[in-house]
Amino acid sequence: MKDIAAICNVSVATVSKALSNRPGVNADTSQRIQDVARKFNYRPNALVRSLQTGRSMSVAVACNAIEDPWAGLVMRGVLESLYKAGYDPLLLLWDLAVHSGEHLLRSMGERRVDGIIMFPPADPPSARYLQELRSFEVPVVLLDQRWPACDFHFAGTDDRIGVMAAVDHLVGLGHRAVGCLYCPHVSTGTVRRQAYMAAMARHALPISYYWQAPASTYDEALVAARDLLGRANGPTALVCFNDEVAWGTMVAAADLGLRVPTDLSVVGMANLPCGARLRPRLTTIEQPNVELGRRGVELLLASIDAGESAIPLEKPEEVLLPTHLIIRESTARCRAV
Amino acid sequence: MKDIAAICNVSVATVSKALSNRPGVNADTSQRIQDVARKFNYRPNALVRSLQTGRSMSVAVACNAIEDPWAGLVMRGVLESLYKAGYDPLLLLWDLAVHSGEHLLRSMGERRVDGIIMFPPADPPSARYLQELRSFEVPVVLLDQRWPACDFHFAGTDDRIGVMAAVDHLVGLGHRAVGCLYCPHVSTGTVRRQAYMAAMARHALPISYYWQAPASTYDEALVAARDLLGRANGPTALVCFNDEVAWGTMVAAADLGLRVPTDLSVVGMANLPCGARLRPRLTTIEQPNVELGRRGVELLLASIDAGESAIPLEKPEEVLLPTHLIIRESTARCRAV
Repeated sequence: MKDIAAICNVSVATVSKALSNRPGVNADTSQRIQDVARKFNYRPNALVRSLQTGRSMSVAVACNAIEDPWAGLVMRGVLESLYKAGYDPLLLLWDLAVHSGEHLLRSMGERRVDGIIMFPPADPPSARYLQELRSFEVPVVLLDQRWPACDFHFAGTDDRIGVMAAVDHLVGLGHRAVGCLYCPHVSTGTVRRQAYMAAMARHALPISYYWQAPASTYDEALVAARDLLGRANGPTALVCFNDEVAWGTMVAAADLGLRVPTDLSVVGMANLPCGARLRPRLTTIEQPNVELGRRGVELLLASIDAGESAIPLEKPEEVLLPTHLIIRESTARCRAV
Repeated sequence: MKDIAAICNVSVATVSKALSNRPGVNADTSQRIQDVARKFNYRPNALVRSLQTGRSMSVAVACNAIEDPWAGLVMRGVLESLYKAGYDPLLLLWDLAVHSGEHLLRSMGERRVDGIIMFPPADPPSARYLQELRSFEVPVVLLDQRWPACDFHFAGTDDRIGVMAAVDHLVGLGHRAVGCLYCPHVSTGTVRRQAYMAAMARHALPISYYWQAPASTYDEALVAARDLLGRANGPTALVCFNDEVAWGTMVAAADLGLRVPTDLSVVGMANLPCGARLRPRLTTIEQPNVELGRRGVELLLASIDAGESAIPLEKPEEVLLPTHLIIRESTARCRAV
């Protein structure tokens, strides 16, 4: 800065003002200073600026399964919104961090991030992890999955409405043996399974043990659906935890010689690209995936601006984005009586 | 630190040594200092440490299309390796950055990142962008895609070998009308198309205009394959730019009433999860996707340790990872002629 000041024949204070776009420097002088700074490849030090302002303009994003196509869509929303707001994301992979979670959190604290987005924290955190998180003086937002007794801000989707609409759709098509492939590990899995059971109860339909199985990935669905569909008292329709599970179900059905939707109706969840590519095209519960990421960032930025921290909030915000059923070709009238 | 020193009845220098694990403090004292630091939630400031050491222990990763399943696998390799080496990744989305690339690069410079991974830089950079990149005093590694006159370190896959093996496989099955769905925008697209042409020439087979079309996504393949396969002189086998293009080709064939592999053989590239899920299962050219990310980080870390920068390197390293053909069910003996 001293060199630039000497070349431009102004004070260091003037150079400082011009380079940080503060008032008090006339336009010509400011332009001249900036030209010289560019010529000599002057690069302000963001580390120093962060120390001065107390804001690092960075946010930690703890992301599970970056290669998962659904997670990728939510992450796009997160990254787009952070980018627009001028924050840089420091990315942590949740599954890597699981054995050194406290250590990683601590390192984010040392980097003085301005906030943390947890997406999707599949397993509830250990007491020690939660303690470390509480010691942060920056806001935390959970995306998609809740933790027990969660008092952080949260953005998710209204899975209950979507799953109930799917069951209504299937019952309307004459299905009574409506089954469910559910994910037992996560909070959305619990919500979706409970919504399935509530909808069945509303239609006064019993649920057989032979219509349900845990499956949260394509591979698990391939095995679970083969098992359920190979039995005498199997379901005529399946509501699946997500589109990948629905895909595995459709392939399992095909491998067993069952035709979808003639012999089996299948409903997915998420509305991933694969759904429209499958033949028959997949009926699915749409979630606003990119929007979910955006809303999570909105919550975080509002919390940062309000000067909140990670200590238990009196009134944590909760955003539940709407879901709705997209009817395609994988569901049809039940042929069984 | 002063408070901790007073509580432990030691000097500030001793506290500093203990908290940064430097020698000269006995084990008991060190433990006592660390316990007190933990109790009072002392958090060293990484910004200050970065200024002192000249290393921020952060790396910028410019990633295209994070929701792309292939990119997700490469990114897992990148993130895993950075994590193991103690570097935090600052993530930039390439497509967001395309209109403000110089600005974003500059901001990474201000953050004093220790290196940059460019993955995959689809379009060649503008002169201005390249100039900004050159002004960095940290190493740059390109992943997957090359730029013209590239003198950065580079890690990619040996696509030429893979594509030639695929053509050999198809010709060995009696196919003569072997076509190609290629990507015209990127360096790997050019390499793969040239390898296809070279292999056809080696078998003394002519290439018809009616056997080739540009297609680099599922949707483009759906349209392009429908067009090629609907013609009288269409191909009996297609080598596709990647697995998503092969998927679109298989769906287009099914929509036209063509059976794969009886009427048409299809080869993909990448070995994504979708390939093994398709029916028939997709024959594909395997790339070591996660490994590609890991090797890119290895190149970068070696370059950081060697104190290199982004100015043109005399001998940029080039890593080409092997590819190989996985034969599944989507290729079979040619029935035509």
